Amino acid sequence: MNHSEIIDKLLNGEMKLYQVDREVSASEATDIRREFLERKYSIKLDNIANYSLDMERASARNIENSIGVLQLPMGIAGPLKINGDKCKREVFVPLATSEGALVASINRGASTITASGGVNAHVISDIMTRAPVIKTENASESIRIKEWFIDNFAELKEIAESTTSHGKLLKIDPILIAGVYVYPRFVYSTGDSMGMNMVTIATEKILDKMASETTARHIALSGNACVDKKPAAINIIEGRGKSVVADILIPKDIVNQKLKTTAEAMEEVNIAKNLIGSAVSASHAYNAHYANMVAAIFLATGQDAAHVVEGSLGITTAEARDGDLYFSVNLPDLPIATVGGGTSLEAANEGLNILGVAGSGKAHEFAEIVASTVLAGELSLIGALAAGHLARAHKELGRG
Amino acid sequence: MNHSEIIDKLLNGEMKLYQVDREVSASEATDIRREFLERKYSIKLDNIANYSLDMERASARNIENSIGVLQLPMGIAGPLKINGDKCKREVFVPLATSEGALVASINRGASTITASGGVNAHVISDIMTRAPVIKTENASESIRIKEWFIDNFAELKEIAESTTSHGKLLKIDPILIAGVYVYPRFVYSTGDSMGMNMVTIATEKILDKMASETTARHIALSGNACVDKKPAAINIIEGRGKSVVADILIPKDIVNQKLKTTAEAMEEVNIAKNLIGSAVSASHAYNAHYANMVAAIFLATGQDAAHVVEGSLGITTAEARDGDLYFSVNLPDLPIATVGGGTSLEAANEGLNILGVAGSGKAHEFAEIVASTVLAGELSLIGALAAGHLARAHKELGRG
Amino acid sequence: MNHSEIIDKLLNGEMKLYQVDREVSASEATDIRREFLERKYSIKLDNIANYSLDMERASARNIENSIGVLQLPMGIAGPLKINGDKCKREVFVPLATSEGALVASINRGASTITASGGVNAHVISDIMTRAPVIKTENASESIRIKEWFIDNFAELKEIAESTTSHGKLLKIDPILIAGVYVYPRFVYSTGDSMGMNMVTIATEKILDKMASETTARHIALSGNACVDKKPAAINIIEGRGKSVVADILIPKDIVNQKLKTTAEAMEEVNIAKNLIGSAVSASHAYNAHYANMVAAIFLATGQDAAHVVEGSLGITTAEARDGDLYFSVNLPDLPIATVGGGTSLEAANEGLNILGVAGSGKAHEFAEIVASTVLAGELSLIGALAAGHLARAHKELGRG
Amino acid sequence: MNHSEIIDKLLNGEMKLYQVDREVSASEATDIRREFLERKYSIKLDNIANYSLDMERASARNIENSIGVLQLPMGIAGPLKINGDKCKREVFVPLATSEGALVASINRGASTITASGGVNAHVISDIMTRAPVIKTENASESIRIKEWFIDNFAELKEIAESTTSHGKLLKIDPILIAGVYVYPRFVYSTGDSMGMNMVTIATEKILDKMASETTARHIALSGNACVDKKPAAINIIEGRGKSVVADILIPKDIVNQKLKTTAEAMEEVNIAKNLIGSAVSASHAYNAHYANMVAAIFLATGQDAAHVVEGSLGITTAEARDGDLYFSVNLPDLPIATVGGGTSLEAANEGLNILGVAGSGKAHEFAEIVASTVLAGELSLIGALAAGHLARAHKELGRG
Repeated sequence: MNHSEIIDKLLNGEMKLYQVDREVSASEATDIRREFLERKYSIKLDNIANYSLDMERASARNIENSIGVLQLPMGIAGPLKINGDKCKREVFVPLATSEGALVASINRGASTITASGGVNAHVISDIMTRAPVIKTENASESIRIKEWFIDNFAELKEIAESTTSHGKLLKIDPILIAGVYVYPRFVYSTGDSMGMNMVTIATEKILDKMASETTARHIALSGNACVDKKPAAINIIEGRGKSVVADILIPKDIVNQKLKTTAEAMEEVNIAKNLIGSAVSASHAYNAHYANMVAAIFLATGQDAAHVVEGSLGITTAEARDGDLYFSVNLPDLPIATVGGGTSLEAANEGLNILGVAGSGKAHEFAEIVASTVLAGELSLIGALAAGHLARAHKELGRG
Repeated sequence: MNHSEIIDKLLNGEMKLYQVDREVSASEATDIRREFLERKYSIKLDNIANYSLDMERASARNIENSIGVLQLPMGIAGPLKINGDKCKREVFVPLATSEGALVASINRGASTITASGGVNAHVISDIMTRAPVIKTENASESIRIKEWFIDNFAELKEIAESTTSHGKLLKIDPILIAGVYVYPRFVYSTGDSMGMNMVTIATEKILDKMASETTARHIALSGNACVDKKPAAINIIEGRGKSVVADILIPKDIVNQKLKTTAEAMEEVNIAKNLIGSAVSASHAYNAHYANMVAAIFLATGQDAAHVVEGSLGITTAEARDGDLYFSVNLPDLPIATVGGGTSLEAANEGLNILGVAGSGKAHEFAEIVASTVLAGELSLIGALAAGHLARAHKELGRG
Repeated sequence: MNHSEIIDKLLNGEMKLYQVDREVSASEATDIRREFLERKYSIKLDNIANYSLDMERASARNIENSIGVLQLPMGIAGPLKINGDKCKREVFVPLATSEGALVASINRGASTITASGGVNAHVISDIMTRAPVIKTENASESIRIKEWFIDNFAELKEIAESTTSHGKLLKIDPILIAGVYVYPRFVYSTGDSMGMNMVTIATEKILDKMASETTARHIALSGNACVDKKPAAINIIEGRGKSVVADILIPKDIVNQKLKTTAEAMEEVNIAKNLIGSAVSASHAYNAHYANMVAAIFLATGQDAAHVVEGSLGITTAEARDGDLYFSVNLPDLPIATVGGGTSLEAANEGLNILGVAGSGKAHEFAEIVASTVLAGELSLIGALAAGHLARAHKELGRG
Repeated sequence: MNHSEIIDKLLNGEMKLYQVDREVSASEATDIRREFLERKYSIKLDNIANYSLDMERASARNIENSIGVLQLPMGIAGPLKINGDKCKREVFVPLATSEGALVASINRGASTITASGGVNAHVISDIMTRAPVIKTENASESIRIKEWFIDNFAELKEIAESTTSHGKLLKIDPILIAGVYVYPRFVYSTGDSMGMNMVTIATEKILDKMASETTARHIALSGNACVDKKPAAINIIEGRGKSVVADILIPKDIVNQKLKTTAEAMEEVNIAKNLIGSAVSASHAYNAHYANMVAAIFLATGQDAAHVVEGSLGITTAEARDGDLYFSVNLPDLPIATVGGGTSLEAANEGLNILGVAGSGKAHEFAEIVASTVLAGELSLIGALAAGHLARAHKELGRG
């Protein structure tokens, strides 16, 4: 069939979208599906047709029923000086966003940080989790299954690790029980990949073993105690992905000059908004806008946008110390990767290259950069609120 | 200065990134900053240089320190038949993602839905909120300020609405008090724009009035009771953005044929995972993966990726009815727009055009589509888990 | 039958515990059941046999299968000077507890307060709620039912208020929907009684009306959105029972002299423990130990001990002001009564009499006293922690 | 001084309440303080004067500023057949409450359970926790302190255990960090006492060691990550006190006959109310009324009423199995004791004796009884709601 025939079949319903891939290359299929939409709706889709990424490869890994490529503006913030455990240098941070004023705001934070000698950053935990839900006959059997996991840990670890060259099963903890439901949280280290797929496959293997040796049956490979892409206290308490803290002491004159406010005013805003404000709202996130920075850097570097949900969690602290400002961010739940997933897409890979963290062995360094960027944006917004000029800044720069 | 001179100044630190815009056009500045990075790091940034969007316009509205454009693959799922209050037709849903298998999974859900006659969708609330934090001398003054807001509502409404042609101040509720801190939640309708900026400006005007008539002072324009881009119970209970429900009754044979499982098995998975699993984890989200669908459609249509955090909230229900499956999703907190923000970016606007919801008067229709797409993805994943083939599907399609 | 015969029948299983009431008076039945236990287990139950309360009356209202009376030590804290909206005087607060050091600690707080001129207290909301769960066919019907409640509010209010002389239906808000489940939160004012029974009966009448006019069916009179005797964000945000705030400004020298610490140290403890500590733990309560004071005063005055769960919620703030200490407590969810329930039991009624708040028209005054007592205890503990002598105090006084 | 002189001094403010203890015995001081109140307020306090407990002993351990004793009616529910790991017999459960209908309702549940052959109960975890908050200079030092705790665990364990004959330090986990704040959660086993005091003293000793070897300083012995007497996700996930599960399979005809309803109806109520209802309310407790049973049995046996807050947490599950009903309760956070605290008070000790669990070696057995009683009450209420007769039962029996 030629393009035109396929489009006709799509239009009259004789063919399904995914069936196009059987007839032509991924790149051609992309064009055909897009043209089908153009003809069906009498619209022009010129912009999503404009792309340089290798659609053959993307179709094999990242997308189905491709129709083209989204364009999202990228800006850069920096230099941002980082004194991390791994990242010890100035970086320029690529940010993909459509929210006016965001890059400028982060840039102001970066400038404040760099003028102060840099932000400290530390990865304090690095895990990926999968927690299936298992069903038993009664609580007594639930307890036995829990014990079975504990007693057979060494063997289960071996089974899990046979499925992966990088993943390690660190522990199965906690193992939560509610009547006939058992939720063992399998905690892995996964190297530089984000690891969701790795831990899914490894955990499935363990569940096969369980099925062969016990009477319990697994209901779902994810039982929502992982917790993937949902806000949850268990991730705050136990950590997930990278758990990162970043902090800085900003001299009084830099607070005044760069942020046009005082340490005392920023401490007050932080208490009123990030601590008590989040408390009265029963929020799980005690910060101003981690999600903004996390989303922008995630998109610019090929991370999974749905993981922004987890990256939104964390606590900001601000403390005036004789006029200087101590400021910290705490991100307990940051699932990221420097290999695999969207990181190999061309544009996103360039984002990683700007940061110098593409490829293996770079995940911790990247995590430190993310947390440092979050601190820059948080600092800037709290500073702006303290200075009372948020609205003015938005009127000038923001156009949302 | 010519390009080369500017880049030299950037490289030796004599010029800052944002200062480039003063010398050249936005588009040229984009090239200069990108070249600066290429030279500084000896890297190639060809792919982010490839774009068709109008960088002059984007630089005026959506991005600062632009360096180019991210490319994110777009796929299409559908046809998805929707029986909404506004959207009564089949749609093809554009999805921007790098997570392999996601579009295919949503497509499977869409196919199941369409075969069943379509998904019902309803917007039950449509608001945007801004909740500043105000500080008083003591609780007594806090109570007076609360009463001042209540007593002067009519006048404050007039003041707020003088700043906007579309926004309406609906209520100030709740007004939370914690000692000297007062958090009035200003609840607006905002028409087709997402409205964050509109409500910020209107609320600021109200606070100016408060400042002139009372002794209270506002600490921050957002006091985290809004709650913007953070997971929070107040948004679940009071709603934010669009609150949307979608549901469907799927005949038994379609459950069997399309999802390779039974209604009973899906009900069981839903209880074990989405209800009890989220409860044991103290999650605020009682669903499998709303964030995935919300992120993919948000990106494809120019929504703010940080709002995925809010879109991740909600409860999925599944009930076997004599072999048929009743299935529903509930999204209390979906901030979206069909005008303004990222929606006017060319590629994203094409995404909206595919859905036929670009421009004014389309926000409710779009909200119904988002919820319907979420239901498709949720249905597909719960079905896959019930059928026990999540991992297999991932091995075949997913490559995370 | 005489006592001995009844006991024999109880012992050999021919008679059930509650059947004893058919044969003899409540007081005799109490003795018989207690003797039955003594004989069955060869134990002495002399102490629970020692009571002065009228068991006939208690058996008609408060207890079934009575066997006697628990004795719980009561202490007194005070004088506690209160500058409330209603309570403008010094009180001595009766406290029933077995936790050594608690009364002494509250007393220390009371002394600090009184020396500072008294604590301010305000009831900011006074409601009782009942939220049934209603089931429909689908989300569309759920929305219609929601609208039915809104449209028929005036008539439903009349129906509800026909069942009670004191209760008023204030609003039905929020009305939450999750698929086929609808949770209308009926919000009443209930005068001086705690009101749970009143609102249950009134709400049942409304549901009868709903049953006769719609196709929805009510699944349970309480659908857990009330939320009764469980910690819940909806109660924090919407309030339940009395919502009360209390605060005080304590001069620097009194902080030093009475609490052996400084305002700055107390502010620091409050931030570290009550704000950030509760945040890292994903707690719903941002305070040190409201539950202790609430439990002790609830028991001493005939409140329902299970409501301590709700009384445990709230936020404490502490702020150093030039060496003086501003301190506040905030109790959004305090279900209390001065008539009905356990308040008419003789000993508890004496507790209310000590406070001068027995009987009608006293509930707000009582609420102010409870919040003031909570502030006293909270102040004392935060002060003790700040002074670093918690453990020492426990070693001396506490013996838990 | 004689009584009369002391009372005069109390009345004219020359003497403070606690100073009375210096002049006379505890029992006399009790009378004097009570008489003081009687004269001051012209009231009669005859009932709280009526008691048999040893006020000398209570004053040394449980109460300060004693004025007498509260009387709270006690009822009995049972026989309740328990098939626990430790408790394998029928019990009669003493319950102290003023809520009419509660004992009757629990009794109905007990009767259903016993007719079904008994409830299974298991203690799955038994710990007591103390989590101080420690302050450092910056995040880097926070991480070092965390590592210090991990590295020195063996020595710290020795130090902790030197302060107690029964307590064992099991682990320090998690150790949460937010900027300069560190919250190490010290997890102990404490034998039969509830253990709060024990773990406080042991932890203080560890902190002394920390103070001598590091530069960190402890801000407060409890940093709210323990979490004592407050609802918190960390307790749900990690457990606190006894974590107990209880379950039962109730044959179809017993459901029908005893509960006047069906397993299917009860499953439906449980999903609608305890799972989805708690989800829409953002509650931490997924049950109907654990707090009621926990409060009544806690009071009857000398437990700390403020711990009812923690006992209110947990998830109820209900599942129809071919007409039979599987029903379970799950209490992750039940701080209880059979020695120490209020358990040695005479009346409460009789409560423990009725259950046969007074004294050492009985805590697990007691925990099983508490969970079984909770199941009885939960079963009865869910059954009543399912049968649609909650309100009617309240009209007949309840008088709240």
